[in-house]
Formats: sequence, structure tokens, C-alpha cells
Amino acid sequence: MDALAPLPQPPWKIAVVGAGAVGCYYGGRLAQGGNEVHFLLRRDLDHVRQHGLDIRSHLGDFHLQPVHAHGSTREIGPCDVVLIALKTTGNAALETLLPPLLGDRTLLVTLQNGLGNEEFLAARWGAGRVLGGVCFTCINRTAPGLIEHTAQGTVALGEFQRPVLQRTETLAAEFRRCGIDCRTEPLDWTRWKKLVWNVPFNGLAIAAGGMNTAEILGSPALAHLVTALMEEIIAIAAVLGHDLPESLAADMLASTRGMGPYRPSSMIDYLEGREVEVEALWGEPWRRALAAGAPAGRLDMLYHFISHAVACRKNARAD
Amino acid sequence: MDALAPLPQPPWKIAVVGAGAVGCYYGGRLAQGGNEVHFLLRRDLDHVRQHGLDIRSHLGDFHLQPVHAHGSTREIGPCDVVLIALKTTGNAALETLLPPLLGDRTLLVTLQNGLGNEEFLAARWGAGRVLGGVCFTCINRTAPGLIEHTAQGTVALGEFQRPVLQRTETLAAEFRRCGIDCRTEPLDWTRWKKLVWNVPFNGLAIAAGGMNTAEILGSPALAHLVTALMEEIIAIAAVLGHDLPESLAADMLASTRGMGPYRPSSMIDYLEGREVEVEALWGEPWRRALAAGAPAGRLDMLYHFISHAVACRKNARAD
Repeated sequence: MDALAPLPQPPWKIAVVGAGAVGCYYGGRLAQGGNEVHFLLRRDLDHVRQHGLDIRSHLGDFHLQPVHAHGSTREIGPCDVVLIALKTTGNAALETLLPPLLGDRTLLVTLQNGLGNEEFLAARWGAGRVLGGVCFTCINRTAPGLIEHTAQGTVALGEFQRPVLQRTETLAAEFRRCGIDCRTEPLDWTRWKKLVWNVPFNGLAIAAGGMNTAEILGSPALAHLVTALMEEIIAIAAVLGHDLPESLAADMLASTRGMGPYRPSSMIDYLEGREVEVEALWGEPWRRALAAGAPAGRLDMLYHFISHAVACRKNARAD
Repeated sequence: MDALAPLPQPPWKIAVVGAGAVGCYYGGRLAQGGNEVHFLLRRDLDHVRQHGLDIRSHLGDFHLQPVHAHGSTREIGPCDVVLIALKTTGNAALETLLPPLLGDRTLLVTLQNGLGNEEFLAARWGAGRVLGGVCFTCINRTAPGLIEHTAQGTVALGEFQRPVLQRTETLAAEFRRCGIDCRTEPLDWTRWKKLVWNVPFNGLAIAAGGMNTAEILGSPALAHLVTALMEEIIAIAAVLGHDLPESLAADMLASTRGMGPYRPSSMIDYLEGREVEVEALWGEPWRRALAAGAPAGRLDMLYHFISHAVACRKNARAD
């Protein structure tokens, strides 16, 4: 593969690996816009084959049918673009899922949470084809084949350890043409920006045993920790060379108060006994802070607290 | 009062205010040794008046009868020494409990936990008469009038914001003559030393929902936090001018492993719905770290986490 190959002009052949709420929503928009989008599905495969995908979005509902729905990536074959929306705890499965999708110029765009996913892809299939998309959105799968998109929806696209390229802009332009609010940004900068929200709200929601954002902000002690954690993450990002806006913590607090009682996705995963993305959201940021010598006492506490809580839950299930 | 009056020769008239396990044990030893010790009791008053105090100690059992047991400090009158062993959450009550016990030369010796108690006494009754005793002991009241002392028992006596004086040595010598292992030390140095154990073990025991020391050390994530919190407290103490031994964290971990499954007292208070000494153990140390500009991210997390947990419990009871 030419390390930094340009993209051909759309329409593209696109695979969505890990077609949960995020994968189905963005893949669905790209299919609506005329791309050939193949979805790798698991539990919803039969339903989507028969009934298609139902997207209820605050930006406009749509129904996609027929859908290229697959149970194996071998059925799909090489693509122009692979959107990876698998939960990060399942990354090991990509070792067998991705190879059938790869041509010489296939781009891998991970829409996953947290840190470490681009590195995982780059180590196995080459850094030159790896991009990341940071999704700022409230979106849930609420029934088989039914995706509910309730707020926001922006994607910030960036290159792995490189500045934005022409192909990044081409990808973003096609996202926008298909109805997705999309901009290009330095990827790690955006990932740390999103962590400023995810670390405290997803973390405290779990550590406090299952609280929504309004309950967290209604507790004076936890509201103090939200701000303190946000400031710690902003300071870690600065040590790592990512200068985030000074007003970021205040802006995020204000917009979160405006959201009302939102249940962070990791907290729902935790309460419902599903895998929690502990390493991507807290472990990898903590390790990077440690390696850079940035003070990270609160993140250390939160990461190990959540690790303990998740381990306890697993042991309880094993009993 | 002569600000730094010497003590007369023993035997002394001593009052024990807050005669729980710690007060009854040390007061009981001093009475056994021939001092006139008056106990201010509440729930065990009638029992102790009738049956005396039963001390079961790994250093030797004894029974004390008759006991000067009182329901009011007005019955006791001025003393040479007042031992204060009230839970710190009840300090406001000292405003009315202490005045009847005070003569010109009465010394106030607080055996209470954590930080801020000497300051409370000094602000009201003069810094010159205030001493502190830091108790390193495993001791519980297990039934009316019954105290079980299962391990250790050392008291480190020191003066409030002053070096050790002749009277400090006199007090320590009398403690020793009465069978109490007692040494003199700079008070704040010793208080911070004890916090190196109390902050992580009492704190994590509560924050993890009620775990004993063996369970905490059996969790890799929580065991990491024990060490990290110990190191943070040692670093805060150093910024405040109290240089603790370099091997302290390792020594405390080793001795705690040797103790087996010990239930920290604050955790028992928390689980049984009693007041938790949040401010003395976590709040005041955190405020002093903050004022000195010492990094205290982990302590910040722990303090606010426990504050939240205790507030939730109160709200639940109020419902």
C-alpha cells in the first residue's frame, strides 16, 4: 500500500465493523447518500436482513432497506473504507475480522472511544492507512434494527499521528454530503478533548454505583470532582502537547447541565453486565500521563476504582 | 493559667471525656495504676456503675470496680488532666462538656483521630494547655462495659505546635508506669504518620462499600491505590515539614498484611450507620495539602467520594 494513498472519488465501498448504534447510524447516513455500505452484524443480523434499519434521529428519521447485512467479513471482501465501531474491549477480534476487508488502499477509520485504537490498527495493518473519527453524539440501539439518535452527531476526523491530509478532507466532505456534521482536526487533540468529558462523567457514574449526569452534578462532592478531573485531564493533555481551550471545562459543564439526566454509555454497560471500556477510557490515558510525568492522581484513583468495581462484578458472576 | 505549667507529681485527678473503647482502656490503665480517674459515660453509664469496666487486653486483662462513672462533667469538677476520646464529629459538645473540668493548670490531652482537634481545643481554652496523644491500637467496645484490646496499644504523646516539654515526659512516664507503652514525639509528625495508614485503609474500606484490610490488599487495583495514597500522604507531610521515614509505606503494608482481615473503625461506623470522622481523617488533611500547594489528587478523590457516600446514606435515612 502507498502509505498515504489518496481516496478515489465517492461513491465508495464501505464496511462497518461492529454495527451497534454508532456504526449503524453513520453507516446508514453514508448508504442513504449513495455509498455501497456493508454492515457486519451479530445479534440483529436476521432482523436487519428482513426489515432493514430504522434510524430515528433528531436530525431527521430514515429507513434503510434493503441493507447489505452480513454475518462474516469474508462475504464482504476488500473495501475503500472500513469504519470500525466495535467496542474497544473486543479489539482482539479485529485480527480475524479485518483481513478480508483490506485491499492495497483500504483506509481504516476507527470511530471507537478513548485511546489506543489507532495504535492497535497501525501495529497490525500499517500506520499509513489509519484514521480516527471522534463522535460527539447521544445515540442508542433501543430495539433490533432500531437506532435512536437523540442529540448532537458531529464527527471530528483526523489522521493517525499526522496532520490532516487531502484524503481526510475528501472523507469529511463525503460525510457532510451524506448529512453528517463533520470537520477535520488533529486526532489526538480531539481524543483528549472528548476524554475531558468521558473520564469524569462515565467514570463517576460507574464509581458512584450508577448515577446519571444530573445526579452527579446534584451532589456537591461529585460535582467538585467533575471539575477537578476535567482540569487534571486538560493539564495532562497540555503536557502531552495538546493545548485545549481554557474555557473547555466550564463550557462542558454548562452543556451537560443543559442535557438533563443523561446516562453515560459506560455506566449502562456496567449496570447491565456488559464489558466496560476501562482501558480505552481510563487505563490508556493514565499510562500516557504516567509516561509523560504528568500529575494524574485523580485519574489513577478513578481508573483503579473502576477496575476494582468491574473485577468484583466479574467475580460475582463467576460465583 | 501559666501557659506551659508543669504537671504536679502523680497520682492525678483525671477525667475521660468520651469514654468509648479508647477512653475506657487508657483511663482504665491509669486508674489501675492509682490515679483518680473519672469517666464521662453515656449509654454504658448504669452498667459500669453496677458492674465496673471489663478490659480484655492482649497485654493482660483487668477488671476495674468501683468506677467513678458520671453522666455529667459538672459532677466531676476541675482535674489535673482531661483525656478527650470523643469521636471528632461530636467536638461541638465539648463547648459545654469541658468548662466544668478546667482549673488553672488543667491539661487537655486529645486522643482523637486525625487533624484539627488540638486546634479546636486551643482556640477555645488556650494553646498552652493542649497536648495530643496518637494511639496506635486495635480496640473495640464489644458489649456494655466490655472493652476488647486485640493488638498494639502504643501512645505517642506530643505538645500542640511546640516541641516536647518536661511535662510531656512526666505524662509519658506515668502512662508507662501504668502499663501503657508510651513515647513522646513531635505531635504533627506523628499525626501525619498515622494518617499514612488511616487515609488509605479507612478510606478505601468505605469507598469500596465495606471491605476489610485483607480484602483491600487482595484486590490488585485497590492494593495499588493503598501504596499510591500512602506515598501521596508522605509527600504532603514532607511539604508541610514532617519528614516521615522512607520505608514507612513498605513497613505499614507488611504489618497490615500480618494483621489479617482487620475492619477499620471508620468502615464499621459507616456500615452501622454511625457518624464517620470524614473531616478529621480526610477533609482537614486535604485542606492543609491544598493550602500548602502539595499535590493531593488522590486524597481529593477519596475525601469527596466518602463525603458523597456519607451524604447519600444520610439522605437515604431521611427518606
